[in-house]
Amino acid sequence: MSRLSPSLTERCAAILPVDGEAVRALQSELDRKTKPVRSLGRLEDLAVMLTAIRGKRDPLPLDKRIVVMGADHGVAEEGVSAYPQAVTAQMLLNFARGGAAINALARQVGAQVLVVDMGVREPLPAHANLRSRRIGSGTANFALGPAMTREQASAALEVGFELATELAADGANLLGIGEMGIGNTTSASALAAVFTGAPIEEVTGRGTGIDDATLRHKIAVIRRALQLNRPDRNDPLDVLHKLGGFELAGLCGVVLGAAAARVPVVIDGFISSTAALCAVRLAPQCAGYLVAAHRSVESGHRLVLQAIGQRPLLDLDLRLGEGTGAALAMNLCEAALRVLAEMATFEAAGVSERASDRERDPERERKT
Amino acid sequence: MSRLSPSLTERCAAILPVDGEAVRALQSELDRKTKPVRSLGRLEDLAVMLTAIRGKRDPLPLDKRIVVMGADHGVAEEGVSAYPQAVTAQMLLNFARGGAAINALARQVGAQVLVVDMGVREPLPAHANLRSRRIGSGTANFALGPAMTREQASAALEVGFELATELAADGANLLGIGEMGIGNTTSASALAAVFTGAPIEEVTGRGTGIDDATLRHKIAVIRRALQLNRPDRNDPLDVLHKLGGFELAGLCGVVLGAAAARVPVVIDGFISSTAALCAVRLAPQCAGYLVAAHRSVESGHRLVLQAIGQRPLLDLDLRLGEGTGAALAMNLCEAALRVLAEMATFEAAGVSERASDRERDPERERKT
Repeated sequence: MSRLSPSLTERCAAILPVDGEAVRALQSELDRKTKPVRSLGRLEDLAVMLTAIRGKRDPLPLDKRIVVMGADHGVAEEGVSAYPQAVTAQMLLNFARGGAAINALARQVGAQVLVVDMGVREPLPAHANLRSRRIGSGTANFALGPAMTREQASAALEVGFELATELAADGANLLGIGEMGIGNTTSASALAAVFTGAPIEEVTGRGTGIDDATLRHKIAVIRRALQLNRPDRNDPLDVLHKLGGFELAGLCGVVLGAAAARVPVVIDGFISSTAALCAVRLAPQCAGYLVAAHRSVESGHRLVLQAIGQRPLLDLDLRLGEGTGAALAMNLCEAALRVLAEMATFEAAGVSERASDRERDPERERKT
Repeated sequence: MSRLSPSLTERCAAILPVDGEAVRALQSELDRKTKPVRSLGRLEDLAVMLTAIRGKRDPLPLDKRIVVMGADHGVAEEGVSAYPQAVTAQMLLNFARGGAAINALARQVGAQVLVVDMGVREPLPAHANLRSRRIGSGTANFALGPAMTREQASAALEVGFELATELAADGANLLGIGEMGIGNTTSASALAAVFTGAPIEEVTGRGTGIDDATLRHKIAVIRRALQLNRPDRNDPLDVLHKLGGFELAGLCGVVLGAAAARVPVVIDGFISSTAALCAVRLAPQCAGYLVAAHRSVESGHRLVLQAIGQRPLLDLDLRLGEGTGAALAMNLCEAALRVLAEMATFEAAGVSERASDRERDPERERKT
């Protein structure tokens, strides 16, 4: 933490752990609802967690925003992706125009999409739905040296933190994160290898769909990059600037900023989750603010989720990114909160409880 | 099938298998969208299947209805549930008044809930949101003889079939099914044991939350019932009338009626899925019309889903029933259809494809 700029360091330190007393009170409230205790399983956990984070009951539907950050990656020149690098910029424009998967899914759940250019190779034409927060014209190839400077990593973190702060101030009470960047599974795999300590092979997958030979090459590129850059896993900013992408660092900042503003963050696939893992290494308390949307087919995702103590809600064989899984999971978040807000209690509905529950709670007996 | 009333038999025989040609054309349409091929995983399967079933593109959002059927079970007198039998009727009223979990979750996804009294012990007071289709005042205790007559089972099937037909004619294009009935996991476990051939222990769980001793007793009750009733597993109506509940038979009819009307059905937990399994035994083609919402913690659910060839979408440790999981999964259905309806193609969005895809399709090359 000492390596961050003083202001960000202070703000991270101010992130509160989620209130355990509130969690217990909310579960007990759910236990009075007309259903067997705990019969809504993980939906109950979600309702409790989201409400405890907020410390209040937000009106439903929530004010949902999905931050999708894009950037180019120097390591793409190593031929680690199935798509040409131009696709990063093309897809950011597609997001801005509303034609991508994330747009369709965000519309379904009623979430706004905020598209941020964190540094694609060539600046994009201006578009009302696109924010330019460029840290540079893509990162350097980390197989040849650090992907960015430490100052650039700090600046990207600040961008994300500020953005989350701004969205929270604007009324957002549930954030999602997503990304786009040709070559960014290579960056995320390198980060995941360092942060989890897992062998490179276990955290490296096929990204957009590379063949066996390209996968072997991708693993070799990451191995070379780690040997060359020697990231210090106890210094998250060192790891991030040497191996990260601008969008990864930016999303890491979004997670920190959201936690500081007591806004829960739905994380998407492998890359978003790796950005969140980076945030957890910088400020461990922010783990309590994360909702893991889904388990991607990307092989490293399971290990990254394990490292941040998350069990994903969905298992749909997604591997697209963009925040698509986060959009899908936002429906579950709203559903969970509906249960807490709208269900009747046994008492109010005149429904009999099981004998054992009545005996356990003499208070309620007396009221009957 | 020969044991069903002639009209229902004919209508079941008219259920069409889902059109394989449509499935291929729709997947190929999805492959032109701006995302790596198959990167939305099971969401793509869902979009393809729902659209192929309908044979047309319904406007979004869909017209969604969740049919929740309730009935009492004579076997409850064996002490197999944690709750008193009065809870069945009380919960149906709670559904009608909008205070239960299914109401909260249906509102979140924008689905209408249709509550049907298929035969609780005492007739319920009239309520605008409650339909009375009573087959009797609860089934008989199947540990002492058949739960109902063969005629009652046929009548319950007809009620469900007619209801689905009516809803489809009224514009419904996605149905969900749910249930309520104290004692009905005992009935479903007995049905599942016969239809899957699995040992009783493997398909019998804790229902609303019974203890070890009650679970052992529940298994013994089912064993006794199977020995006494000797259901013929090759005659689904024989099995259903000896071991089923009125709501289970009714929901089986809903599945058949929906498939006949080309409306997909989202099935919920263990009990709904067992009703669907019964429908698949009566008309195997209707398996193609089912969407399995979730994997319940109820132990038999996995085997029942296997028997109807379904992999569930959600795994949230739910064990409530009522259609709650179906409501949650309806969001995924709508999300899937949004992808098909709203995403841009590579060509329209001006996004570069992977080299291998361009080569594979010379047709598209010529157009560029």
